[in-house]
Amino acid sequence: MSGTVYLVGAGPGAADLLTLRAARLLVEADIVFHDALVSPEILALAAGGEKIAVGKRCGRHSTAQRFINKRLADAAQAHKVVVRLKGGDPMLFGRAHEEIRYLVSRGVRVEVVPGVTAALAASADLGVSLTQRGVARTVVFATPRVAPGAPANEWLAPVLAADTAAIYMGAGDAQMIAQALIEAGKAAATPVAVVENASRDDVRMLYGTLRQLGALAAELGEGPAVILLGEVLADAAAVARRAIPRKAQAR
Amino acid sequence: MSGTVYLVGAGPGAADLLTLRAARLLVEADIVFHDALVSPEILALAAGGEKIAVGKRCGRHSTAQRFINKRLADAAQAHKVVVRLKGGDPMLFGRAHEEIRYLVSRGVRVEVVPGVTAALAASADLGVSLTQRGVARTVVFATPRVAPGAPANEWLAPVLAADTAAIYMGAGDAQMIAQALIEAGKAAATPVAVVENASRDDVRMLYGTLRQLGALAAELGEGPAVILLGEVLADAAAVARRAIPRKAQAR
Repeated sequence: MSGTVYLVGAGPGAADLLTLRAARLLVEADIVFHDALVSPEILALAAGGEKIAVGKRCGRHSTAQRFINKRLADAAQAHKVVVRLKGGDPMLFGRAHEEIRYLVSRGVRVEVVPGVTAALAASADLGVSLTQRGVARTVVFATPRVAPGAPANEWLAPVLAADTAAIYMGAGDAQMIAQALIEAGKAAATPVAVVENASRDDVRMLYGTLRQLGALAAELGEGPAVILLGEVLADAAAVARRAIPRKAQAR
Repeated sequence: MSGTVYLVGAGPGAADLLTLRAARLLVEADIVFHDALVSPEILALAAGGEKIAVGKRCGRHSTAQRFINKRLADAAQAHKVVVRLKGGDPMLFGRAHEEIRYLVSRGVRVEVVPGVTAALAASADLGVSLTQRGVARTVVFATPRVAPGAPANEWLAPVLAADTAAIYMGAGDAQMIAQALIEAGKAAATPVAVVENASRDDVRMLYGTLRQLGALAAELGEGPAVILLGEVLADAAAVARRAIPRKAQAR
């Protein structure tokens, strides 16, 4: 018996933003290793499969990556369909590289199923396109989270250079992010939005300027949040109020 | 009667990379305005709705944006569920901004349904994560396509600054892109991959260095292609050969 490990994007949160392929693989799965952020509603699709939580969440307990790698490879010896379910898309800030490299070295077949990433769900909730003709044709996805020993400010230059930026896993460091960007020359008046629980019923959208980013983030709850900044967000508050009536409007 | 216009991401190509929500909206749609790149298999979900092709494809005939805007608003007067179906995600290089702004100005309700964008599908096909701990934690999405009057090289700086870059709608200008990047200081040996028809059965993946980008792109067919570049792609060819057995391996 030699199964396949599917690295599957669970999407941003809402169960119906799963792809059809991801839903089918969950139904077929013999075993599912999932991140902490994946909703019970999505996991319920894997009715016939064993479900194992393997981390990870900012600042919480998480299973060591090496242990996850080994468990995935071992599971592929015993099962046909092994699903590794990750929040958002597996290939953006998901450490998929480490899992793929290990599985390939063990001779395990791997397939990746892409998903909807949080920044695009946040953009949809806001009703604000991340690119706009004449305003923005580059968007950077970045995180200030560092591996031990990595230079702490290498995320700054691309965020400064791009027209629009989406910052993942940054809400806890929002004050530091704003300060670093302003010191590096980004205008303090740059429009920002912070979206917590993008795509979920309890989504919260906060608007302001880069100068206010720390204060905005301080209002957030415990949910995953993405920070968006750039001129495209200049009329985010107005658009959201007029165009997106069903979503919670925090301010 | 006042309907809602849903700007829906059709995903990268494969019909089962549609989200569950997008599939449901297509089934419910009274009328669907779709891009040229959306597959017949996806459109077939809208069995009960009128289907209208409205553009756009690089260098081909396309319907003027103002005319699309007006048709969407008019359709919302006559129908309950109006779907505007766009390739990939609506909020990345999709001109959603212009449609949202117009619809909001006409008092039409708009909702955006995010989708899987081409670069993430290409990354999945390659088996190469766009971010990697210690190697890449910033990814820029850019296009060299310009609006009339826009500065032609404003896309360069963010692509130079980010660890990984995904360039949309650039295959036709690949030689120019490589030359501009190398002249601006990007190493000619930077690993690149070009993925045509990401996620489809006829996907093609070409690997090389930035110096070879023009030659690689010259081998492509007529399908949509995304260019990826950065150190994360250094072992893309090796990973794809070993991990992704079902996909076409062009080289």
